[in-house]
Amino acid sequence: MDLNAYMLGLGKTARQCARPMARATTAQKNAALLAIARQLEHDQAAILQANGEDLRAAEAQKLEAALLDRLALNPARFADMLAGLEQVAALRDPIGEIEDLQYRPSGIQIGQMRVPLGVVGIIYESRPNVTVDAAALCLKSGNATILRGGSEALRSNQALAQALHQGLADSGLPAAAVQVLDTTERQAVDRLVSMPEYVDVIVPRGGKGLIERVSAHARVPVIKHLDGICHVYVHADADLAMAERIVVNAKTHRYGVCNAMETLLVDQSIAAQALPRLLPPLRARGVELRGCERSRALDAQLLAASEADWSTEYLAPILAIRLVDGLDAAMEHIERYGSHHTDAIVTRDLACARRFLNEVDSSSVMVNASTRFADGFEYGLGAEIGISTDKFHARGPVGLNGLTSLKWIVIGDGQIRGG
Amino acid sequence: MDLNAYMLGLGKTARQCARPMARATTAQKNAALLAIARQLEHDQAAILQANGEDLRAAEAQKLEAALLDRLALNPARFADMLAGLEQVAALRDPIGEIEDLQYRPSGIQIGQMRVPLGVVGIIYESRPNVTVDAAALCLKSGNATILRGGSEALRSNQALAQALHQGLADSGLPAAAVQVLDTTERQAVDRLVSMPEYVDVIVPRGGKGLIERVSAHARVPVIKHLDGICHVYVHADADLAMAERIVVNAKTHRYGVCNAMETLLVDQSIAAQALPRLLPPLRARGVELRGCERSRALDAQLLAASEADWSTEYLAPILAIRLVDGLDAAMEHIERYGSHHTDAIVTRDLACARRFLNEVDSSSVMVNASTRFADGFEYGLGAEIGISTDKFHARGPVGLNGLTSLKWIVIGDGQIRGG
Repeated sequence: MDLNAYMLGLGKTARQCARPMARATTAQKNAALLAIARQLEHDQAAILQANGEDLRAAEAQKLEAALLDRLALNPARFADMLAGLEQVAALRDPIGEIEDLQYRPSGIQIGQMRVPLGVVGIIYESRPNVTVDAAALCLKSGNATILRGGSEALRSNQALAQALHQGLADSGLPAAAVQVLDTTERQAVDRLVSMPEYVDVIVPRGGKGLIERVSAHARVPVIKHLDGICHVYVHADADLAMAERIVVNAKTHRYGVCNAMETLLVDQSIAAQALPRLLPPLRARGVELRGCERSRALDAQLLAASEADWSTEYLAPILAIRLVDGLDAAMEHIERYGSHHTDAIVTRDLACARRFLNEVDSSSVMVNASTRFADGFEYGLGAEIGISTDKFHARGPVGLNGLTSLKWIVIGDGQIRGG
Repeated sequence: MDLNAYMLGLGKTARQCARPMARATTAQKNAALLAIARQLEHDQAAILQANGEDLRAAEAQKLEAALLDRLALNPARFADMLAGLEQVAALRDPIGEIEDLQYRPSGIQIGQMRVPLGVVGIIYESRPNVTVDAAALCLKSGNATILRGGSEALRSNQALAQALHQGLADSGLPAAAVQVLDTTERQAVDRLVSMPEYVDVIVPRGGKGLIERVSAHARVPVIKHLDGICHVYVHADADLAMAERIVVNAKTHRYGVCNAMETLLVDQSIAAQALPRLLPPLRARGVELRGCERSRALDAQLLAASEADWSTEYLAPILAIRLVDGLDAAMEHIERYGSHHTDAIVTRDLACARRFLNEVDSSSVMVNASTRFADGFEYGLGAEIGISTDKFHARGPVGLNGLTSLKWIVIGDGQIRGG
C-alpha cells in the first residue's frame, strides 16, 4: 500500500466528517458515546482476544514488563473504559456555548461561540484504552479524529475501532469520524503531523521521545506534554506540619506521574528544624534522598546531589533536596531547572504567596497544596486529553475546551459601519 | 556580521527580558507607553528625517506608489501613532486577571491567571508606524518583542527604536524588551521563526506572500492572517432595504480591507426583486459586477463571473454575484470558496439565523450586520495585533488577550491528594 496515499485518504475522510460532527447535537453525541459503550460490552470477548494476541506477540518479542502491563486490557480496565464513556456523556457540551454576548456602541451585539477545532490527530503508545478515551473526548467536542496507537497494540486497537464505528453509525453520526490507523509504519506519524490541510491539531500522549519526534516533524499545532520537574518550596514561614503532609504526598502518592515532586526546596533559615521533620517520613517510605552540600551538613545520611539532579524527572522514589536563601532564590531555581509544569510553595506569608503565584511561570502554580492536584479531574474538567506544557492555546490540564476554539458572532438589525 | 549569531543574541536578550516584563506592574507599563509617546514627540524631527531618507531611497529604486504611501510617516500618521500609545495605556491590563476562581470538592481553590506568552516576534512590511503599534501591544501585555519591519523602512524603524528604548529605560523597564532588527537580510526572518527556545509566537502582518513564507519556515506558533473572501447572503426572507444598506456598506465602505465583501449570494427565490434593488447603488459607486449565469439572465449588464471569481479576494471595486437555492446552498458555497474570515446573512427568519450562526465555520459570523464590523476596535478589544484565520489559540480579531495565556493557580490550606 502507498503510505502517502493512505494517509491523505484518511485526512480527506476526516476533513469531510468534521462538518457533520460540528453540527451534531448534544443528544446525538451523547447517544453515540453510550452506544459505543454498549457495543464495547457486546464485543468484549473479541477485544480481549485481540488484546491477548497483542500480549503474546509482545512477550515473544521480550518487550519489558512495564510495557506489557500498559498493553494489557484486563476486565477492570475494560470497565474503566466503559465508565469513562458514561462520564464524558454526562459532561456539559461545550459546543455552541456563547461567551460575553454584549452590545457595542454601534448597536451590534457581539459574543464568542465555542466551536470544534475540526480534525484532531492523537498519537499514543501502548495503552489501548487511550483509543476509547481519546475518541470519546474528540466526539463530545464535535471533532473528527485520527488515532495512531502503539504498534504493539495494533490488534487491540483495530478491535476497539470496530466498536467505535458501530456506535457512531448506530447514532446517525459518520462512522469515519473516528479513524484508527491500521499500519505500524513509523513514517505514518511523520505524515500525520504534516498535513495541515487535513489535521488541525496533534496531541501526542506518551514519553518524551514520542513528543520530541512529533514536535520535530510537526507542520500543524501540537498540544505538547513534556517533563514534569515539579518543586515544592518550603518557605521560612511555613507551617511545618502542613509542609510535611504536602511533601510526603507530592513525592510518594504516586511515583511515575508528571505531577509528582522531583525537587524539594527548603528555606535555609528553617532548614535545621525542617529537615529532621520532612526527611524521616520520606526515608520511611523508601525514598532515596539526594541533597545539596548545605543540606548534607545538616543531615549526614543524605547522598550527594549532582548538578544533573536538579533537572532530572525521576518518576521514581528519588528526591533531590536543596536549601535556598529565600523566595527569590527559590524562584530562580525553579525558573532555571524546572519544566514549567507544576510548582508549589508552603507558606503562611500572604505577600510571599502572592509573589509566588504571580511570578512562577508554570502551567500550575500552587500555594499550600500538593502538586498531585495538577490534573483535569481534580480541576473539574471532567476529563483530560493531556497536560500542556506549552503556553500557546491551552496550558496545563487540557479538557474538552482545549479541543475547541471561539469564533465571533455578531447579531444586528441592519447596522452598517460609518466613518 | 554572522547572521546566526546576531539572531541568537537577539533571542537570548529577549528571553532575558521576558521575566522582568511579565513582572512589570500596570503602572510601570502605562508609564513606559506614555514615556515612549513623549520621546517620539521629542524625536519627531529626527524620525521624519530618517523616514525622508527611506522615502528618497525607495523612490530612487522606483518602488510602486502604494508602497511609498505606506512607507511615509507624515505628521498626521505621527499623531495617530502617539494617540495609539495613549489608547493602549488606557486599556485594562489583562495580566494577572484571575478567571473562574472556585472551590473544588477536595477543598482546593482553583482559577486561571492571565500571563504573558513571553517573547513575541512580529514581522511586517513597509508601514513604520506598525513598529510603535506592535511594540505598544506587546509591552502592555507584558511580553518582550522582536520586531522585523520592511527593508525599505530600516532607517525609520531604527529611529523609532531609539525612542522606544529610551521610553522603556525612563520607566525602569529593560530597554531591550523591544528589539528592532537592524538587518535587511531575508534570512533573518527564517531564523527568527525557527528559534522556539527564544520566541514563543510569531505574528506576521502583511501580504499573503509574507504570511505563506513565514508559515512555511516556522518552527514556532504563528498567528496567521490570511485572505478575507467575505460573503453576504441575502436570504429569501431578507428585509431588502436592510440588505441594500448592508451590501453597499460591506462592499464600498473601503475596498482594500480584508473584511470587505467579495461575493454576494442572493437567494434565487427573491432574485428578481432583489437584484434591481441591490445592484444599481453598487454600479452608481463604480463597482464592477460579475454574475453567475442565472443572475445574468435577470440583469443583462452583469459581466460573466468565472469559477476563479468565487475564490478571489479582489481588494478592489469588483464584486462577484451568485444566485443560490436556499440556506444550505449558500452555506455550501461559503464552505467551498470562502476563507473562513467573515460571512454574513441578511434575514428575518430566526431558524435560518440560528443555523447560519451555528454552522458557518468562519472567524466572524454575522446576522443582519455589515462584514466591515469584523475589527478589534468594533469588537471592543481596544486594539488589534491582527485578525487570525486560524482556529488554534486565537480566532478572528486578536487583541491583548491573544498575546497572553492562562496558567492555573491553586490555593489550599494544606490539602493533599487521597485515593
